[in-house]
Amino acid sequence: MNESTPKKPILLLALGGNALIRKGQEGTIEQQFENLQVPIRQIAKISQDYRIIITHGNGPQVGNLLLQQECCDALPKMPLEILVSQTEGQIGYMIESTLDGELMALGIDHKMLVSLITYVVVDKNDPAFKNPTKPIGPNFSAKEASRHDYPTMETPKGYRRVVASPRPITIIEKREIKKLIDMDFIVICCGGGGIPVVRNGRAFSGVDAVIDKDLASARLAEEIGVDIFVMATDVEGAMLNFGTKNEKVLRTVTVEEMTCYRKEGHFSKGAMLPKVDAALQFVQHGGRRAVITSVTNIEAAVAGQAGTEFILKRGDNHD
Amino acid sequence: MNESTPKKPILLLALGGNALIRKGQEGTIEQQFENLQVPIRQIAKISQDYRIIITHGNGPQVGNLLLQQECCDALPKMPLEILVSQTEGQIGYMIESTLDGELMALGIDHKMLVSLITYVVVDKNDPAFKNPTKPIGPNFSAKEASRHDYPTMETPKGYRRVVASPRPITIIEKREIKKLIDMDFIVICCGGGGIPVVRNGRAFSGVDAVIDKDLASARLAEEIGVDIFVMATDVEGAMLNFGTKNEKVLRTVTVEEMTCYRKEGHFSKGAMLPKVDAALQFVQHGGRRAVITSVTNIEAAVAGQAGTEFILKRGDNHD
Repeated sequence: MNESTPKKPILLLALGGNALIRKGQEGTIEQQFENLQVPIRQIAKISQDYRIIITHGNGPQVGNLLLQQECCDALPKMPLEILVSQTEGQIGYMIESTLDGELMALGIDHKMLVSLITYVVVDKNDPAFKNPTKPIGPNFSAKEASRHDYPTMETPKGYRRVVASPRPITIIEKREIKKLIDMDFIVICCGGGGIPVVRNGRAFSGVDAVIDKDLASARLAEEIGVDIFVMATDVEGAMLNFGTKNEKVLRTVTVEEMTCYRKEGHFSKGAMLPKVDAALQFVQHGGRRAVITSVTNIEAAVAGQAGTEFILKRGDNHD
Repeated sequence: MNESTPKKPILLLALGGNALIRKGQEGTIEQQFENLQVPIRQIAKISQDYRIIITHGNGPQVGNLLLQQECCDALPKMPLEILVSQTEGQIGYMIESTLDGELMALGIDHKMLVSLITYVVVDKNDPAFKNPTKPIGPNFSAKEASRHDYPTMETPKGYRRVVASPRPITIIEKREIKKLIDMDFIVICCGGGGIPVVRNGRAFSGVDAVIDKDLASARLAEEIGVDIFVMATDVEGAMLNFGTKNEKVLRTVTVEEMTCYRKEGHFSKGAMLPKVDAALQFVQHGGRRAVITSVTNIEAAVAGQAGTEFILKRGDNHD
């Protein structure tokens, strides 16, 4: 490469669902674009000092597409891999065009930015396929649920489809993403944790599953050699005694300390636990810093002034 | 650039809707993947001699998403720009993963390939916005049509929504696409003619419109400096007296000859005319060759053995 770009550190920002739809909102397109400005404005600024990868969740969006296709019997149903790919298109466009606007507002008009379709290999023998546990899409009545040929779970509102959430093994587009990042492109990718595929001979086929976006982001971060891995969500950080009067936000934690808190059961399974696991995995595999922070505090968290920061051990130099 | 890639000529392939769903098919996902193999297997071979851009239509797919959201009153309706972005995700994934498989089958495992979200600027004063003529989505009854606040047209089966089809002005991601093509990435982009946006101060906003994918592809081809522009469709090429017993496929035509046939009214407005216009525009603005061919004959057409080939004037060297 004879690019003149200095090798700035690489920052991966994983945006949670609340970056698009906040609790209690209906999720109109206007709301989603407005909400997105909060993290994206910060990332536009940060992009002057870091090479940037942005990943994102897709829970509400893929749920809506599932509900819409359940409503419409006239058309062939699309498998989950296709719905995930549709949300990568949608949210990729929303993030890219919002970022375009925010960069222009800062007078930065030379940045290259791309939103990439991403698919992620999972193991067809992953135990998750034998015991699907991830609820997706709308609630059904017992009668409706019995019409479908997929597994469901009972919920307070009826039944929901459950799918496997296997571990991400490798991100197919990692070589492309690495090359683009080396050229200081801002890359939006791995939406919804990536489209899940399994190896099928020399090629790949999609499978009905969803991949946790924080674990997929951690895997990508390792494969690319990311320096700082930031997960932006709807709380300030990882907390001890969450939801009690002794609730306490953790600031800087070592892998050893966090592994201990994790065993003590401080982090809830469907929410904070995958983030904690993704952060631990990243730092244990050579990443410099992982941070869990709120969507509003991304800039401060990158500067070391907010969020829960994971480091390998005390005394490490943060930057 | 010190890339070792030799500067192979650039070929842009625009895939028509029938590359995914053939006439009379229901359009299951299995059918769509199977149909795609026909053009993609050819393009995998061709990619050894050309740098490749692939664009594609999205008519049936965007129509299905519209129909599905019309069926489901529980969720906020998404505007057309979002549905187009969803189809870019879907079809981008389908093309990329099929191409991945076909390249591997040929033992080509070093190619970089990406599917990019693409948005395309249109002029908010384009006359098309005053007189929307492009029907999209499902047929409604008169009563249902009156519930909606958008323009409709009468069809033999009821009413359909009509939207503007403005001319593409510039492809936002052209710098990124050029850079990737220069590095011999295969780039899938401009799906469904691109997500239509208008300039809004220094940034962009989406508009309810669809852009003709052949015209958008021609615009991209000009902006990138494509050498050969191939449009793959469901007929052998442009025809004189189409549908009569004097029907005749045109082989090699000059801009002057084709302009004359065009004036004589040989090409139908909703079908062959935009392709003819896109080909004429490309060759008139400096492109070397444009070809309209069937999905099954892409390789032969590139070799000059099939399809309708547009050249500036006789005596030009084709390659």
